[in-house]
Order: sequence, then structure tokens, then C-alpha cells
Amino acid sequence: MNFLISVYNKEGLTDFLARVKANIDYIYATGGTAKFLEKNGYTVRDTSEITGFSDLLGGRVKTLHPKIYAALLYREKNEASDLHFDVLVSNLYPFTGNTGNENEMIENIDIGGVSLTRAAAKNYKNVLVLSSPDDYTEAAEIISSGKNDAEYRKRMALKAFARMAEYDAIIYNGLSDLFKIEKENFFVVGKKGERLRYGENPDQEGFLYSDGSAYGVANAEKLNGKELSYNNILDADSAFDTALEFDEPTVVVMKHNTPSGVSSHNDIVNAFKRAWDADSESAYGSVIAVNRKVPLDLAKEMRHLFIEVLIAPEYDEYALSELRKKKNLRILRIPWIRDQSMRYRSISNGLLVQTPMASSFKELKLVTEKGADSKTIDDLLFAWKVVAHSRSNAIVFAKDKTTTGIGAGQTSRVESVRIAMERSGSRADGSVMASDAFFPFPDSIDVAAKAGIKAIIQPGGSIRDEEVIKKCNEYGIPMYFTGKRVFLH
Amino acid sequence: MNFLISVYNKEGLTDFLARVKANIDYIYATGGTAKFLEKNGYTVRDTSEITGFSDLLGGRVKTLHPKIYAALLYREKNEASDLHFDVLVSNLYPFTGNTGNENEMIENIDIGGVSLTRAAAKNYKNVLVLSSPDDYTEAAEIISSGKNDAEYRKRMALKAFARMAEYDAIIYNGLSDLFKIEKENFFVVGKKGERLRYGENPDQEGFLYSDGSAYGVANAEKLNGKELSYNNILDADSAFDTALEFDEPTVVVMKHNTPSGVSSHNDIVNAFKRAWDADSESAYGSVIAVNRKVPLDLAKEMRHLFIEVLIAPEYDEYALSELRKKKNLRILRIPWIRDQSMRYRSISNGLLVQTPMASSFKELKLVTEKGADSKTIDDLLFAWKVVAHSRSNAIVFAKDKTTTGIGAGQTSRVESVRIAMERSGSRADGSVMASDAFFPFPDSIDVAAKAGIKAIIQPGGSIRDEEVIKKCNEYGIPMYFTGKRVFLH
Repeated sequence: MNFLISVYNKEGLTDFLARVKANIDYIYATGGTAKFLEKNGYTVRDTSEITGFSDLLGGRVKTLHPKIYAALLYREKNEASDLHFDVLVSNLYPFTGNTGNENEMIENIDIGGVSLTRAAAKNYKNVLVLSSPDDYTEAAEIISSGKNDAEYRKRMALKAFARMAEYDAIIYNGLSDLFKIEKENFFVVGKKGERLRYGENPDQEGFLYSDGSAYGVANAEKLNGKELSYNNILDADSAFDTALEFDEPTVVVMKHNTPSGVSSHNDIVNAFKRAWDADSESAYGSVIAVNRKVPLDLAKEMRHLFIEVLIAPEYDEYALSELRKKKNLRILRIPWIRDQSMRYRSISNGLLVQTPMASSFKELKLVTEKGADSKTIDDLLFAWKVVAHSRSNAIVFAKDKTTTGIGAGQTSRVESVRIAMERSGSRADGSVMASDAFFPFPDSIDVAAKAGIKAIIQPGGSIRDEEVIKKCNEYGIPMYFTGKRVFLH
Repeated sequence: MNFLISVYNKEGLTDFLARVKANIDYIYATGGTAKFLEKNGYTVRDTSEITGFSDLLGGRVKTLHPKIYAALLYREKNEASDLHFDVLVSNLYPFTGNTGNENEMIENIDIGGVSLTRAAAKNYKNVLVLSSPDDYTEAAEIISSGKNDAEYRKRMALKAFARMAEYDAIIYNGLSDLFKIEKENFFVVGKKGERLRYGENPDQEGFLYSDGSAYGVANAEKLNGKELSYNNILDADSAFDTALEFDEPTVVVMKHNTPSGVSSHNDIVNAFKRAWDADSESAYGSVIAVNRKVPLDLAKEMRHLFIEVLIAPEYDEYALSELRKKKNLRILRIPWIRDQSMRYRSISNGLLVQTPMASSFKELKLVTEKGADSKTIDDLLFAWKVVAHSRSNAIVFAKDKTTTGIGAGQTSRVESVRIAMERSGSRADGSVMASDAFFPFPDSIDVAAKAGIKAIIQPGGSIRDEEVIKKCNEYGIPMYFTGKRVFLH
């Protein structure tokens, strides 16, 4: 087989060639690659022998020559000349994004490599294109086996086009950022695609894609259990996002993409018990996030409970053995790092994009005559973090850093208060209340007072703030404004 | 200025050149383009004069020559040769996706055009790249004004890289489909980006992107009102999606991404009144979708109501005049066609993708001893469509094709029943009930019976179906299974 090799990243190249040595008829390579291979004992010809051109413009023009392209784009061997390639090994200058160094960025925009790769990919009927060192292992197996694998060439051509598309998207993003020009285009490149059993419902097809990193729910390490479902992943993501809010040991119980119970406690086992008991009716079949290494005690506590998915940064070895007795329990290990990239969702014939939501705010402002003690303020801050991750309109009641009732997903705010109250039952008395947006009317305060709420946290900003504050003063309920709304839909 | 022109789509080219005629020093063009321009009275030189090569391989290799690339990639004019280009006008073979004709698809993978475009875009410091006829109007203005606009060249380079990225993504998708190879990559290309005032909350940045079509909420025509907010668009999309379910005249009132009221009625004005009154507390500040041309009567009905956004396929001229009196009301006209493409949403370090949800099912199966009359069945089918677009867990009560109470966004199903009951009040009596998933326990039936529910529609499929059916038989409530779940999170 005839090889054309032009690589920036030389990793793995000589190992690969060693494995396919018996299959090599000749190798052509571009300047730097040729020198590298010769140094490693390979006989190679320089592409300048074909083109008659040595590098022009300091490397900007190396391979852009008709004879080379004829040797990649032939329909029949020997159609254009006596030269043809069977394999192109190529990878690109590393354009990594906006480094702030314009000239360096420009030089890292690969022209020749992309052209070679695309030409070889176009001619997948005849040419095998290897556009990343990631492909060498499989390629060595297939080439050395001597079989002419048309399916494999197709797969590698697809990889090549995908990589070229991503490369230009990265250039687009990097240069847009460098130029400070608002992006007219938004590119998402999903990777490592995996077909799920189905989508949100059994008659929908569903797929999971990664951003190519090792982080987040999309790249979580599964230590046990059945395949994750679409809804498992969605809930796990919301649970993870919520749990990331807390520094203290905290457990989040997630169901239908909204928390059913959350608790912070020095002892993670206690945090779990409290979060579960906050709404044990909903917790059945839930997704649970634990923001600490899971100890054996906690694993034992979960033994007889129906949990769909458990996520944590780490698991004690004995805890893992215990948990694995539950064959169906999906156990995920996730690096405890927040994804800071843009969030997006499709709408009809387009998409909405936004920066991530964070519950943090600048200043907690007392707006009532009476203030709260420090323990109550701790509860308020706890409830605020939870309400930020509950579906809007959302109201959270909490006591002792444990939710007592969550009213979420409502079209009316006062209805959310009523639901939180109903789910809290007698625990409402002495709880604090958090609201994800301002109260448009004072009616919610009446309901809260009746339930025994002892302090309130909310963004403020209603034209009726004064009425709402007055109402709190009447009831003697301290109220604080965060100056920040935390809708989540 | 020196032009290099190589276009497949010749639309607008001669008009463009006529406008910049005074600025042209010389034009080089590739074979077909050269002939076309000569026929239109332009003096052009063929690129084969530069390369000494006429087309190789039937057009597969035309411009891939060092002298051409040196004339595009120069750092200083005359660095490489006496030839240099100031402007590249280029567009690509039309690869449109999987046509099923492999050879035609392969031929439509443009190699030379992409290489030229990328080279010129890389050299934006010196070269202006026009990679689509869409760019000609602005380009003609700028070129004929004689100013050397570095900012403009940057913008055009960005457009070029974005188009090349999209082109290869389309090739990737098209070939994957042709080869029937499951996609390892998922590409989203958002277009016509628009910065919104903010995202879901004021401290988040927000953006809207289109798929490039003229359809859907992302491309709706705004006939009146303030800028749309992120949440307006999200609600409008859900309202549109829900309204698309109905053939009869129907009005959907959407709030916080879940319907607060829906009604079908022969008279669209009545449908509106009923949908609004279904939950007038929530309807305040809502997004409304009307699946008919909006008549003047309906516009008058809306006069004194606070509506954020109104969407419809069409508006009566007088209705529009009436509605425009409400300065802040955003009025959208949207072609009444469902987007059938994949739905996606980001998760941490990745994304979930699925085919769209549709409420349609194969067979309505009576599972109780007693069946319902045809009017009740109409109500059941109506409620089913609404519950499919309410956030899970969702329960919908309806009567006379009008929702009486919606319980949505709950972590427990029986809680959704309680909420629907509470919001229905006395209207619950004689309503039907729809559930978006099976009842895990018979407790919901007890609550429903107490509320006066007279028939039930649900997917079925619980291990406790028999208990649930038995319970319905005890109460004499007809129940139907759709055999299909309609979760929406």
C-alpha cells in the first residue's frame, strides 16, 4: 500500500507504521514528517519530489499541488498519473481557540492538512484516511490483516469530515472571540454518541453525546447497574447541578427533574436520611446525588430503598461492594466540577442559548423591621440554593437545613406556596420559605404566615414589594431580598 | 483590486461585479466561472494560465496549485510571486444531504472550493473572502466605497469558517445516513444569532439562534411589541407545540412552560374565553397560541387583558390594528407547521438528543367494565393532548373540551391529582382526567372519584394496573389505556 503522511502530532506514528510495515509499498511525507520518519529509520520520499516545489511562504503552501490531489482523488488507480495513495495519515495544526496571540492563531489555521484530509475522505471508495492518532490501533489491525475493508474506510471518512467540521467551528469561535465579534453562529459538536434504549418516552429515539471531556454527567463513570435511561440522565444532571451548590455534606433527591428533598448535615448519613424523609413518597425511584465520598454506613442505609441512580464524587470500597448488591442500581462516579460552558435547548426550528445559572448573589438585604437569628439565616440560604434548582414557579420550605416542602412547576406562585405548605404538613411550622422570584401579590405571605413560616428569602423587585414587606411586618416575619431571580424552566 | 472567482452558484455574480467594476484590476476565474463571465462581457483569465494544468480528473483537481495558494496566502503582496488576490469570490458544490445517489453525493463534496475559501479566510489580513451570494450587496457597497475595511474582512472570514464547518457537518450527516452508520457526532449549527436582553434570569446572557429556515418560533415574524425575552420564547415554543396538536379551533394559555388553560370550540372567541377562564389567576401575563386566523372579535376580547405574547398562523387586518393598540403585546405570526427535526438539550459536559414527542397513539383501549359515551371520549382525547404538553408528572382535568384543572411539574403523581382537583374546584365534578404516565398506585383513583371525575385516560403499564382497574370498576368510572407514555420534562 502507498502511504501519504503529513502530521503535526507525531504521537504513535512510528508504532503504527511498525505494525503495518509489511503492508507498505512506499511512503511519501511532507517536510517535517519526512525528516522525523527518516530519523526513525523509515525510507520516505519527500512530497517536494512530486511537486517540484519546496515549501512556499514558510510552510503555508506545501502539498497544494495537482499531482498530489490527483493521487488522492483518483477514481481508478493510475487514472491521472502513475502515482496514487491508498492511505492518508494526516492531522492538523493545533488551533485551540482564542489564545490572544493573533499571529500564532493564524499560523495554526491548517489549510493543507484539511485539504488533504477532505480529499482522501471524499475518495473513501479508494483511500483510507486516518485523521487522528486515536485511529491508529484499529487501523493497524485492519491493515495488517490484509483485508480491503470498504466499511472501515467509510467510517474513517465520516470521522474525518466530523473532525474537519469541528476544527472550523473551533476556528470560528476562536477568531470571533479574538475579534470580539458577536457570534452569528452557534456550534454544538456532540461526541462519543451513544444510542439510549429510548428517549423521554418509549416511542422516542434517544441519544447521549459528550463534549469530549472527562467531566459531567455526560462522561460519568458507571460503576454498577443497568443502562441509564434518557430520564435517568436528565435527573442525574439536575441532581448533580443542585448538589454542586453546597459545600457542606449534602444529599439531593431528584425526581422528574425537580428536587423532592435536600438536606445538609455534618454527617452525610444523616443528610441522606433527612433528604429522603423530606418526601419519602416522591423519593421512591429517585435519583440521588451525594456531594461526599459515600461511606459504608450510607450504603447500608440505602440497602432496602428503591433508588434509580446514585451519583457521588467517590465511593468507599466497602460501600461500593455493599451497593453493588443492588444489581439494578446505577452508580455513577463524577468529578465534582461544574461545567461552565453555555447551556442550550432546542425550540422549533432553532435553539435558545444562555450562560449557566448560579444561585450566588451579591448582598442579602433585610427589608423588614425584624431580622432573623443566624441559624434561621443559615436555613434561608440553604432554602435559596434549593429553590434555584426547583422548576419555576418554585417555593421551598426548609428547617434545620432540610427541605420540609417544595412547591414547584406551577403557573401561579401562590399555588406553589399552597403545595409547599401541604407537603410540609406540620413541619411547615417554624420552617423558612424561599421563592425563586418576587411575590406579585401579598397573598402568598398570608398563606405562609398561616403555615407558621418564620422567615422569608426572595429576590424582591415587584411593584408591590412595599405591600409584601408591610404584610411581613404585620406578621412579624423577617424577610430578606437577594436582588436576584433564579427561574429554572 | 485583483479578484479570484470560482463559484458553483452564479446567482447575483454579474450584478455584484457590475457594481464594483471600477475597482477591478483583473479577474482570474476557474473554467466554468470564466466561461460564464466572458459570456457576460467580462475580461477574465483562466486559472489554468497560472497552473499550467487544465482540469484533472474531470474537475476534481482545478485550483489545487501552489501558485494559486501563494497568491491567496501571502503575508506581503509579491512575497511569493507577482500574482496576488485581494478578493476571493467562491461558493461550493451543493451537498444537500442524503439523496440516496452515492456517486452524485461524492461528486458534490467540494474540495477545491473549500480549500480556496479557507485559505482566503486564513489570510483575512490581506484578502476579502465572499463565500456566499448573500454577501454581495454589502461587499459591493464596501468595495465601491474604496475603503480598506479590515473589520469587514474579519467578519467575512468568520462567515467563511462558519459555512465551511456547516458544510462538513452536512456531509458528515448525509454520508452517515447514506452508509446507515450510527452517528458518533451530533452537530447543531445555530444561525442568525441574536442577543437577547438576558437569559432565563437577568444575570444570565441569552441568545436565540435559528436553524436557517423560515419556520417555527425561532423564525417567527414579529408584528408588534417589545423585544421577546428568553422566557417569552420558551413559553411561545411550548404554546405553539401544544396548539399544533389540535385540528379544531383551539386556544392554549401557557405560563412558565406549562399550560394553564386550553380549550377547543367551534367559535375561536369562545375557545379563548374558556381557555383564559380555565385559570384566570395564572393566565395573567401569559403566552397565548391561537391555531386559527385571529378575528377582530377575538382581538377585542383581549383588549383589557395582560398578555405577554400572542402567536397565531394569521391575523385579520382589523384584528391586528386592534391588537397593535397594546404597545407592549408581542404579536407573532408563525407558519403552522411542526418542526420534525431532533430535539436536544445540554447537560453537564454533553447533550441529550431525541426525536420529537407526539401525543398520537395507536389504539384507545377500554379496560373497565363500563365505557364512556362519545362526548366523554372527545373530552378524554382532548385532555390527553393537553397532558402530553404539561410538565411531568402531569394530570389534566377537562370538561367540554376545556381544561378545568392542571396538576403539573410534581414529583408525585397523586400530588398532581390533588392539585388538579384543587384548581378545578367545583368544576371537577363531571370532568374527565388524563395522566401522562400510568398510576403506580390506586390512590389517585380515590382522589379522582372524590372529585367527581367521570372517565379516565392514561397509558397503562403499571404492575398495579389490575388494582387500578378494579378501583375504577368499584367507582363505576370508565378508564381507557393509550398504551403510550407522554412524559415531558
